[in-house]
Amino acid sequence: MKWKRSERLVDMTRHLLENPHSLIPLTFFSERYQAAKSSISEDLAIVKETFEENGTGKLVTVSGAAGGVKYIPHVTETEVREVMALVKENLGRSDRLLPGGYLYMTDFLGNPKIMDRIGKVFASAFGDTEIDVIMTVATKGISIAHAIARHLNVPVVIVRRDSKVTEGSTVSINYVSGSTRRIQTMVLSKRSMKSGQKVLITDDFMKAGGTMTGMKNLLEEFDCELAGIAVLVEAEHTEEVLVDDYLSLVKLRAMNEKDRTIELEEGNYFTKGGKLS
Amino acid sequence: MKWKRSERLVDMTRHLLENPHSLIPLTFFSERYQAAKSSISEDLAIVKETFEENGTGKLVTVSGAAGGVKYIPHVTETEVREVMALVKENLGRSDRLLPGGYLYMTDFLGNPKIMDRIGKVFASAFGDTEIDVIMTVATKGISIAHAIARHLNVPVVIVRRDSKVTEGSTVSINYVSGSTRRIQTMVLSKRSMKSGQKVLITDDFMKAGGTMTGMKNLLEEFDCELAGIAVLVEAEHTEEVLVDDYLSLVKLRAMNEKDRTIELEEGNYFTKGGKLS
Repeated sequence: MKWKRSERLVDMTRHLLENPHSLIPLTFFSERYQAAKSSISEDLAIVKETFEENGTGKLVTVSGAAGGVKYIPHVTETEVREVMALVKENLGRSDRLLPGGYLYMTDFLGNPKIMDRIGKVFASAFGDTEIDVIMTVATKGISIAHAIARHLNVPVVIVRRDSKVTEGSTVSINYVSGSTRRIQTMVLSKRSMKSGQKVLITDDFMKAGGTMTGMKNLLEEFDCELAGIAVLVEAEHTEEVLVDDYLSLVKLRAMNEKDRTIELEEGNYFTKGGKLS
Repeated sequence: MKWKRSERLVDMTRHLLENPHSLIPLTFFSERYQAAKSSISEDLAIVKETFEENGTGKLVTVSGAAGGVKYIPHVTETEVREVMALVKENLGRSDRLLPGGYLYMTDFLGNPKIMDRIGKVFASAFGDTEIDVIMTVATKGISIAHAIARHLNVPVVIVRRDSKVTEGSTVSINYVSGSTRRIQTMVLSKRSMKSGQKVLITDDFMKAGGTMTGMKNLLEEFDCELAGIAVLVEAEHTEEVLVDDYLSLVKLRAMNEKDRTIELEEGNYFTKGGKLS
């Protein structure tokens, strides 16, 4: 089959979007489309311009024998503000207030389209950071971890509260919960990380940061390095935060059970996430 | 900004891929690209042909005032066989054998690229089925549920083993585990489903089907309907299977701890999934 330029552009766009942060040799495209490398380069220039002008992401060309092209998901500031507004509007609905001052977020975390946008926003901020693995804690952090992972093309590892037979041998640590000051346990399968790996930690919600500290301690047990922390919602709190190098999308300022109000504002994404150009 | 056809094709492809199973009015594209509807229709014809000839999916046009275009992810038989081979090869490695005859799958379920392909394979089979929600049980089923959900554009609800304060009021049921015959509990937030919704149940592993039966019973408590069952790995077993209308990608025929061998074969995807054209 001989491909026309228009068909190549459609298929090439699909292939790049499905393979973020992956180096694709030009020969892959020239063989797939039975086209000269010069034609492929012209196609890629069109894709690059369209991606970059419309906030899809960057197309990075690596020259040389081992060269190729790499799609780096990257959002605009407008998109980040839109996603923040969406999160604030949705999570700010008064029927999300639960007895005891908790916020119901489960349906929100189960929405694939919103999660995909949030994942891309975080993947943008960490696009230039070396990351081998994304770590989260079961259950609520899993969807956000996978959403970020897909855009960064790295695996997800899941820390559990208890050991399960299907995990094989595990490493277990105890840590102190930040807000309740209780001793808790975290368990991670020994096979899930290799020493020296760089790990992005993520979770849906952070108050005093006890869970995050627990995960940081686990990293040490595996001789791994912290590459960053991404939090969907950080909560206002009176105690000192146990971690400081985190990036948050929104901040829960206050909840009032009597008035049934939830106050959300922008997180530290723009102030801390200086990597975003 | 005036868009050229080549730029429109790139951006349109991205927009369609990011919004599967969503009806997009032609006016959305003609306004975004400042182009006549006739030009947009020609663009869409190119995208449609390229998607359909290369196994990306279908592009369905709905005519009339409320009309538009919809991208339906749909894989070829070749892609399904490739994904099956990939799963068999990867899960068949002898170091996945755990004491007690369990299979270590956690790293596999944490790989976003493989999960995305598996999700699309299942989404293809259920592309013509009316589905409102995808249900799974924590923790291991979550990544596959989200992978399918993204391609079908429906939310994920997660059944838990225990009740958590962040879930609000819950509905709890007891069920008998298929292989161990033990009484177990399942909990689902009351807010997670509305009566009458059509639910696709999924999990990473199924033996006698006890967990699936538990989820089916939960559906009844919510006055919801079963739309289908998708299983990544079904295991050979001596007992009668408690559910029969499931679709599986691969089948675990046997594991031998002494010889350290794992035998996997194709699941019932092709025999049961007659919807795949």
